[in-house]
Amino acid sequence: MISLLIKNAYLLTMQGKGSGFIKKGAIAVHGDRIVDVGISEELEAKWEARKIIDATGKVVMPGLIDAHIHTGMGLYRGVAQDIKDWLQKGVGPYFNHITGEEAAAGSMLNILEGAKSGTTTFCDYDYPMTRIVENHHRIGVRARIASTVNELPADLHRIKVGEVYPLDESSGRKKLKEAQKLMEEWHGKGNGRITCILGPQGADMLSQTLLLEMKELAETYDTKIHMHVAQGDRETDQMMKRFGMRTIDYLESIGYLNERLMAVHLTDASRDEVQLLAEKGASMTHCPGSIGLIDGVVPPVMEFMKAGGLAALGSDQAPGNNCSNMFNEMKSAAVFNKIKAQDPTVMPAEKVLRLATIEGAKAIGLDHEIGSLEKGKKADLIIVNMMEPGLSPVILEPVNNIIPNLVYAARGHEVETSIIDGSVVMENRNVRTVNEEEVVQNAQESAENLSERIKKSC
Amino acid sequence: MISLLIKNAYLLTMQGKGSGFIKKGAIAVHGDRIVDVGISEELEAKWEARKIIDATGKVVMPGLIDAHIHTGMGLYRGVAQDIKDWLQKGVGPYFNHITGEEAAAGSMLNILEGAKSGTTTFCDYDYPMTRIVENHHRIGVRARIASTVNELPADLHRIKVGEVYPLDESSGRKKLKEAQKLMEEWHGKGNGRITCILGPQGADMLSQTLLLEMKELAETYDTKIHMHVAQGDRETDQMMKRFGMRTIDYLESIGYLNERLMAVHLTDASRDEVQLLAEKGASMTHCPGSIGLIDGVVPPVMEFMKAGGLAALGSDQAPGNNCSNMFNEMKSAAVFNKIKAQDPTVMPAEKVLRLATIEGAKAIGLDHEIGSLEKGKKADLIIVNMMEPGLSPVILEPVNNIIPNLVYAARGHEVETSIIDGSVVMENRNVRTVNEEEVVQNAQESAENLSERIKKSC
Repeated sequence: MISLLIKNAYLLTMQGKGSGFIKKGAIAVHGDRIVDVGISEELEAKWEARKIIDATGKVVMPGLIDAHIHTGMGLYRGVAQDIKDWLQKGVGPYFNHITGEEAAAGSMLNILEGAKSGTTTFCDYDYPMTRIVENHHRIGVRARIASTVNELPADLHRIKVGEVYPLDESSGRKKLKEAQKLMEEWHGKGNGRITCILGPQGADMLSQTLLLEMKELAETYDTKIHMHVAQGDRETDQMMKRFGMRTIDYLESIGYLNERLMAVHLTDASRDEVQLLAEKGASMTHCPGSIGLIDGVVPPVMEFMKAGGLAALGSDQAPGNNCSNMFNEMKSAAVFNKIKAQDPTVMPAEKVLRLATIEGAKAIGLDHEIGSLEKGKKADLIIVNMMEPGLSPVILEPVNNIIPNLVYAARGHEVETSIIDGSVVMENRNVRTVNEEEVVQNAQESAENLSERIKKSC
Repeated sequence: MISLLIKNAYLLTMQGKGSGFIKKGAIAVHGDRIVDVGISEELEAKWEARKIIDATGKVVMPGLIDAHIHTGMGLYRGVAQDIKDWLQKGVGPYFNHITGEEAAAGSMLNILEGAKSGTTTFCDYDYPMTRIVENHHRIGVRARIASTVNELPADLHRIKVGEVYPLDESSGRKKLKEAQKLMEEWHGKGNGRITCILGPQGADMLSQTLLLEMKELAETYDTKIHMHVAQGDRETDQMMKRFGMRTIDYLESIGYLNERLMAVHLTDASRDEVQLLAEKGASMTHCPGSIGLIDGVVPPVMEFMKAGGLAALGSDQAPGNNCSNMFNEMKSAAVFNKIKAQDPTVMPAEKVLRLATIEGAKAIGLDHEIGSLEKGKKADLIIVNMMEPGLSPVILEPVNNIIPNLVYAARGHEVETSIIDGSVVMENRNVRTVNEEEVVQNAQESAENLSERIKKSC
């Protein structure tokens, strides 16, 4: 007897080159793995299950992958909008005053928000990570963790916009040590749900020595490198002043452009630069909601994909994007690129859905386990109620409106149930693993304390 | 004893030039009107109410105004995305095959979707309107109704893209008669919730004679004219071929540009044209979600507002935008314009919130009744739960994050309660006036029947 059978679903397996749609599909799960996927009638005849979910009127699809998120910034949502010099002037005071405990409270809220809107895998990129990783473990999501490393001085907020930041080697060494410790303690935990990778914070924030050392470590551990690359004119300005080169030229010159690299943002990268990135096999994570709101820019993901690159989507962080919801990211990726190209045919819905599932999984190096509903893969999936007033009706012929509606109409709250590593993390909108009210209350109290301290220091 | 007191709210009155924020506010309602607005303690001491709602942790604000929607197209959400020639090739088959009953089923679904995401006023622009207006009346929302008039022939779908449409006078006359009948039967119904205005469908779709006749009627009835203006290159092409003039020059030449005109879209209008529109006192409704998705264009609303024009926001229709949710429209308006201007400071959150409330009310000519929470105005308001995981925490100082979060983080389902004309239409997410499941089921069945007929005709 298997543990779970979900039947009568509109199934999006994301197998093959499209969406792998099955009109009346089923999926059989045993333990943490998918044991069968196919036509509902056939699976119902074949498998006896302890738990059966009837998904009539609902989509069953792979859980969404948020390929770049800083959950530790969850607490200061909405404090830095509609301004220039976002980093220095907007989030700076919050960044400088927050305690580890407060960051952990915001992180839990941020993970809860993502989980409730269909994210099952979070590529969390933050520092310090020790308490944040515990949040992921506790709530039961899949997390690809990078404890960020930089050599920025503690008094960065005193440095004027445009001045070259001094680098502090001891600070970088300390953070790298913590990253290695985290890797040793956490990699593979939670039945493999938690994996650790390396996270230099940006070519402008580390010395070449430390950056090269992290490259070697990535080879030793045989793991990915998650890194901000060409994230804006601030970075480019620092790179030109410090190294006399733009970021991507610099990374190429020190052998960083290869399949290990998960390059994030590329806000300020040229067409030639993203082409080079794609040719070298690095993946690109773009965060349209965040970069659109912070910079008014649409990253060059179309050019990157045209060059054959593997792209993923990320929500970035609460004070930039304000929203850690992959349905927001999917719609933003599609519409922003249509606006940029002045062409409604570019970045179609199915392509975007692939970026948030199977192609995202490839980009972060987890496609052997997740990203599609396939026999042998981990059971990471979501059930979306298509009978919500804002998502219905479902039309199958002559045009199938399921994918356009998931990408352009869904808001996130239509995700009813979320299964991760074979466990039901959310059922009928109730997250089973944490007390949601407590998470919100804890974040609220932490935000009030933090804000009170900032107010006093102003 | 008054009928309702809502206390302990984060109150956004939208009075004055900003948001009229009160940290711990209350609002007193009696019958259909607001009788008092102010500090919670003071109102609690002053008023005894039959019903009291404690809005701790919640925002109370004016209901949102959707200044342009075709609810009759609600049934074919998601059938026409990622294509060119959206009108002719995408929605055409659905438009041509749908029955009045099916359109009414889609309309009810669309209104339900809007109502559940905070819309309290719908400027519905559709034909035929007789059954649609009944939907608005029944569900209990405020509706500004225009029964559209055009002289398009019934076999429009046979006309090739780029060919000048022949106009059919008798069809136009029939539609105008129906619009007048609707006005006589419905204007002022539902305690004034339903108001009727005129709705020529576009300068390219009517003869000059009929357009001028409708102008005279608007003067006779002393009412607004809701009209598509410069809605894209298809329209401009038709205008040049038929009249040898672009739309706005043409409308100016026949005296159409004045305060009666609610000009919708302006997708293809130049800076000079929208400036002229603003100077003449016409308002502009822009539908960023729909036009972004259908055309890959951001309408020139910044230029219009810079020229002093009054702007509003609309969701347009389900097969274009895919989503009739004013929270989607607010975020889209802000971020699309930041992208267009490559400047994160343009179209700030508070401005966008004003477009969806008080300024929208002015643009559609209903600001004497709605758009702000003010003594003497109609009680149209919503209660938004800021303690949802995707909206929290609330920070008041040193930066107030409530408005950025409403605009950039809210998804619509955080609206808990909706009060329209003093009546509780939705409470704790349950719409009281219709059976939600029946509405969805009816739309689903209607969509299946419609699609079956289209499939057979293909």
